[in-house]
Amino acid sequence: MRQIYVKEFGIMPGDEKETTLKLRKMLQEIQKEEKLEIRFEKGIYHFYPDYAGEKLLYISNHDEDTIKKVAFDLSGMKQVKISGTDTQFLFHTDILPFHIDRCREICIEGITIDYARTGYSEGKIVEVTDKKMLLEINREEYPYQVIHGNIFFEEENGIDELYCGCLEMDAKRCAPVWRGQDISFNRPYQSSYGAFFQEAGENLVEISLTGGQKFPETSKSGNILILRHHWRTHPCFYLTDSADVTLRHITIYHCTGMAVISQFTNNITIEQVDIRRHPVKKRMFTATADGFHFVYAGGKIQIKDCLVENQLDDPVNIHGIYGRIHKVLNKKEVIVELVEGMQKGVKLGQPGELFGIIDNRTMLEKERAEVCEVTMLNKDFQYIAFRDEMESLTQGFVVENKSYAPDVLIEGCTFRNNRARGLLLTTAGQVIVRKNRFETPGAAILIEGDSNYWFESGATKYILLEENEFINCAYVPQWGSAPIQVSPSAGIWEEGQRYHQYLEVRKNLFRCFDNRLVYAVNLETLIFQDNKIEKTDQFPPIAGEAFKLDGVLKFQTDYYG
Amino acid sequence: MRQIYVKEFGIMPGDEKETTLKLRKMLQEIQKEEKLEIRFEKGIYHFYPDYAGEKLLYISNHDEDTIKKVAFDLSGMKQVKISGTDTQFLFHTDILPFHIDRCREICIEGITIDYARTGYSEGKIVEVTDKKMLLEINREEYPYQVIHGNIFFEEENGIDELYCGCLEMDAKRCAPVWRGQDISFNRPYQSSYGAFFQEAGENLVEISLTGGQKFPETSKSGNILILRHHWRTHPCFYLTDSADVTLRHITIYHCTGMAVISQFTNNITIEQVDIRRHPVKKRMFTATADGFHFVYAGGKIQIKDCLVENQLDDPVNIHGIYGRIHKVLNKKEVIVELVEGMQKGVKLGQPGELFGIIDNRTMLEKERAEVCEVTMLNKDFQYIAFRDEMESLTQGFVVENKSYAPDVLIEGCTFRNNRARGLLLTTAGQVIVRKNRFETPGAAILIEGDSNYWFESGATKYILLEENEFINCAYVPQWGSAPIQVSPSAGIWEEGQRYHQYLEVRKNLFRCFDNRLVYAVNLETLIFQDNKIEKTDQFPPIAGEAFKLDGVLKFQTDYYG
Repeated sequence: MRQIYVKEFGIMPGDEKETTLKLRKMLQEIQKEEKLEIRFEKGIYHFYPDYAGEKLLYISNHDEDTIKKVAFDLSGMKQVKISGTDTQFLFHTDILPFHIDRCREICIEGITIDYARTGYSEGKIVEVTDKKMLLEINREEYPYQVIHGNIFFEEENGIDELYCGCLEMDAKRCAPVWRGQDISFNRPYQSSYGAFFQEAGENLVEISLTGGQKFPETSKSGNILILRHHWRTHPCFYLTDSADVTLRHITIYHCTGMAVISQFTNNITIEQVDIRRHPVKKRMFTATADGFHFVYAGGKIQIKDCLVENQLDDPVNIHGIYGRIHKVLNKKEVIVELVEGMQKGVKLGQPGELFGIIDNRTMLEKERAEVCEVTMLNKDFQYIAFRDEMESLTQGFVVENKSYAPDVLIEGCTFRNNRARGLLLTTAGQVIVRKNRFETPGAAILIEGDSNYWFESGATKYILLEENEFINCAYVPQWGSAPIQVSPSAGIWEEGQRYHQYLEVRKNLFRCFDNRLVYAVNLETLIFQDNKIEKTDQFPPIAGEAFKLDGVLKFQTDYYG
Repeated sequence: MRQIYVKEFGIMPGDEKETTLKLRKMLQEIQKEEKLEIRFEKGIYHFYPDYAGEKLLYISNHDEDTIKKVAFDLSGMKQVKISGTDTQFLFHTDILPFHIDRCREICIEGITIDYARTGYSEGKIVEVTDKKMLLEINREEYPYQVIHGNIFFEEENGIDELYCGCLEMDAKRCAPVWRGQDISFNRPYQSSYGAFFQEAGENLVEISLTGGQKFPETSKSGNILILRHHWRTHPCFYLTDSADVTLRHITIYHCTGMAVISQFTNNITIEQVDIRRHPVKKRMFTATADGFHFVYAGGKIQIKDCLVENQLDDPVNIHGIYGRIHKVLNKKEVIVELVEGMQKGVKLGQPGELFGIIDNRTMLEKERAEVCEVTMLNKDFQYIAFRDEMESLTQGFVVENKSYAPDVLIEGCTFRNNRARGLLLTTAGQVIVRKNRFETPGAAILIEGDSNYWFESGATKYILLEENEFINCAYVPQWGSAPIQVSPSAGIWEEGQRYHQYLEVRKNLFRCFDNRLVYAVNLETLIFQDNKIEKTDQFPPIAGEAFKLDGVLKFQTDYYG
C-alpha cells in the first residue's frame, strides 16, 4: 500500500479556505490509484464549502434533495485508506464531509470531526411558567437575532429561523427529560406552540405563548433547551453503492445530519466510532439526527465499541424501503411511488435483484420475482418491470428489494441520552446484539416495519439480544412502550403467520424503574431467558406489565415478575 | 414538415394526470426527428408534475437552483413546431412548462397558458389605518389558513407562508398605487413589517402591525393587495444554449416566474405573445416576475406586438453577467465568482469566446481576449483560462463575455401596470425601440449596468427610441427617476470616456404628469429631438427637471421645457 502525505499536496492544518480546493485537486489526481493510504498529520484542518465540488444528492432519511457541497468526494475509489493521528477536521456550514460512492475497500480512521458553527444552538431555561419561558443563550457561541417576534440564529451562510423545534434536556442527567416531548414554535400546524420572542437582556430571550397551549409540565428551570434551526441536510459519512467500508477510531462531535447514512452498500464495519459530546464546549447535542443508519445494506454490518450519545435521533436504524404500487400497467410492469418525503429519489434496486410483493394490510409477502428494469421517472415515481408475470400486483400493495438483508453484529457499544429510541432492527439477516449498554429515553430495541406511513421495511427472522445492559430505558412514552419493543404496523394478521419471526433475549441485565420489559405484537417466537432484572428509583414508574404481548405465537420465559 | 397530432399519442384535453406521462413518452419517441409539427387540437390540456421528468436547473434570475419538474422538455430538438388552435394548457404547481435546451429552429404558437392554482393570491383592502388592515380574501379562489398569527396559502403541493411580500394595486387603474412600495411581513430584517394575522370573519383577515411601522400613507380601502407566497421558481419558457426560437400567438395568464427567460440563446422572436390579466378571473397579477428576460443572448432579439401587463417585475430585461475576479492564479488564469444569488450556476461562456476585463470602479474595459477554458467549480465559482497573457487581471475586477451582444427590435407592444420598470436595455448591439406604448410605474426605459451589486452587464453603443408613447410613467420613485433613465453604477468616471455611448430619443409622444423626461448619467451622447410633450393631471407632480443629466458628453435637443 503506497502512502502519501497530504502535505505533499499543500494541505496543511490551519484555517484556510484553499484547503478544500487543494483536497479536491489531490483527490482528482489520485482518483484512479488503488492500494493507497492518504495520511493527515496532527493538527486542525478546516474545510470550507467555497471551493468544494457540488453534487445533486437524494440522501435517504435526510431533508432537501438538492445540490450539496462535498469535501471528500471519494467516488469510484478502491482500496484507499484515509488516516490521521491526532487529526481534527473542522467543517464550515454547509458541507458534507465524506461521500463514499461506488467504492470498494475504503477505510477511514483516526480523525475527529466537528463544525465551526453548529447547526443547532442551545439555551438554559432560567424561568418557566405555563405561558412564559426565559431562556439564556450564549450569544457568542450561538449568535442569534430577535426580529418581529421571531428568533433567528446566525450560521456561517446566513440566518435561519428556529423551525425544527426544540428538545429539553435534563441538566443533571444530560439526557432528555423524563416524559418529555418535542416542541416547536410557530409551525403551520395547531399542535405547534404559537409564540412571541423578545430580547430580555444580555443573552436572555423571553418566549411568550400566544395560543392556547402551556409549556410542558416537565419543563423546569436549569434545564437546557436544544434549539433546532437547521434541517437535517449534511450527514457526516454518506455511503452509496459501495462495499467493504470501514470507519474506525473516529470521533464525531457534530454534523447537520446523521453520522453515517448508507444506501445499497455491503459490508460496513464501524469500530470505535464515537458520536460524543464535545469535551470542552459541553454541548447537549452531538449529531443532529441518527447515529448509524442503513438503507438496504447487504453483507454484514458490524458496529463495535462505539459510544453513541446525545444525537437527536436513533443511534442505529437498519431497514429497507417499501415502494408503494401506484399503478399496475400489466402483469409484469408497475409504477411504484416513494411515499415518505425523506425517501424521495432512492432507486429501489437494479436489474437482476429479487423483489417481493407485499400486501400492505398484512405486510406479508405474496410473491417474489426478479426485476429486469428499474427506471426513475422522477424522485417520486419509478418504473419497475418483472422478468415473469406476477399474480399479485395490486395498487396499494408495496414492493421490497429482497436482495439486501444484512447480517448484523452490534457489540460493546454504549447508546445513551439521545432523542428517540435505540436500535431499530429490521433486516431478514442474522442479528446479534451483544454486550452493549443502553440508556435510551425510548425503547432500547425497536423492531418495527411499516408499509403505510413510514414505509420502512422489513420482516425479521432471527434476532438475539445477549449480555446487554438496559438501564432505565423507555422513560419517554412517545418513543417507546418498553425497553424491548416489537411493533410492526400491520393492521390485519393472518392465521398462523407473523411478520417477525424470532427474538431471543438472553443473559441481559435490565435495570428498570418500573415493570415494563417487552412489548411485542405480531411476532412468531419470543424467548426471554436467563436475564437479570433489577429495580431502580431513577424515575417514577410508568404503568405497564413486564410482558405486554399481542399475537406472539410462541413465548418462553423463566421470568414471572 | 411532417405533421403529427398529439391525440395519436393519447394526449387529449381533460383533467388527467397521465397527460404529462404521455407527453413525456411522445417527446422521447420523436426526439430525433426533425422537420416536425406537433399539433394540439382545441381544448384544455392539464399538466400535472406527478409524472414529469426532473432536471437540476440553475435558472438565471430565478430562485432555488435545484431539481425542477418539466412538462415540455425539448432538449436537443431541431426544426420542431408545436402549435395549437384554441388550445389551453393548464399547469399544476410545481411544473415548468417549456425547457428549450440545445435546440435549433423551434417555434411554439397558438396556445394559452395558465395555472390551476396561482403562486400568488390577492385580497381587497376593506379598511386600513396606521396599524391595522382588514383584508378580504376569496377563500375559494385563494385558500388560506391563519395559524399562530401567521397566514399560509394552500397551493397544490402544500402550504406556503406569505414570505415574498405584497404589492398594493390601485383598484381603478389596475396598476401599482402612485408612490407605492413593496411591503413584506415578518421577514428577518427590520424594514419588514412585524405583523400578527387573525381571522376576522368569512373571507376576512386582520393584519395588526406589531413593530414601529405604519402602513404606507398611499394604502387605501378598495385597493387590491397582491399576496406573494411563492418564490420565483418556474418560468414559463426557459431557453438555454439554443438558436432560432420563435414564440408566437401565445397568451400567458400566469406562471410562477418569468414568462420567458433565456441564457446563451441566439435569435429569439417573440411575436404577439401576451402576458395579460385573466379575462374571467380578473386577477391583478399575471407572471410573478419579469416578462421577457435575456441573459447573454446573441444574434437578434425581436419582440413585436405583445401586450405585457401586470407581471410582478420588468417586462423586458436584456443583459449579460459580470463575473467578479475572485482570485488571480497567474497572468492567464483566474477564479471568477458569481456574486448575485440569482445568477448562481450560470457558466459564463465557452472556449473560443471573447472576454473583456473590466475595472469594477470605472466599469470600463481594460483588455479583451479569447478564453480557452471555462470550468464550473461549483455554482459559485468558475475557473477561466485565457489564451494569452493578460496585463490587467486584478482581484475585484469583473469579466464579461463579449461574444454575446444581441441586436434588438422591440416594436408595436404595450407595456403597462406591472411592478417596477419597463425595458432594461444593456447590450452592445443595435437597439431599436419603436411604436410601443409604455404605462410603467418606474422608468419606461432603463439603461443601467452594474459591476458591484447586481452584476448585470453591459455597456451600450446605440439605442434608438422612436415613435413610442410614454404615458404617465415613473410614478413610483423607487423604480425610476424619469420616463427615460440611464444610470450605470460606476463610481468613478474617466476623462472623456463614458460607459454608455449613444441614446437617441426621436418622434415620441410623452404624456407626463410632471416635468421629468430624461435622467441620464455616464453617457456619451444623448439626442432628444422631435418629441411631443403633453401634460396630464393623472398624478400630483413629482419634483424634477425635464433633463437631469450628469456626465453626458454630448447633448442635442430641441425641447427646452
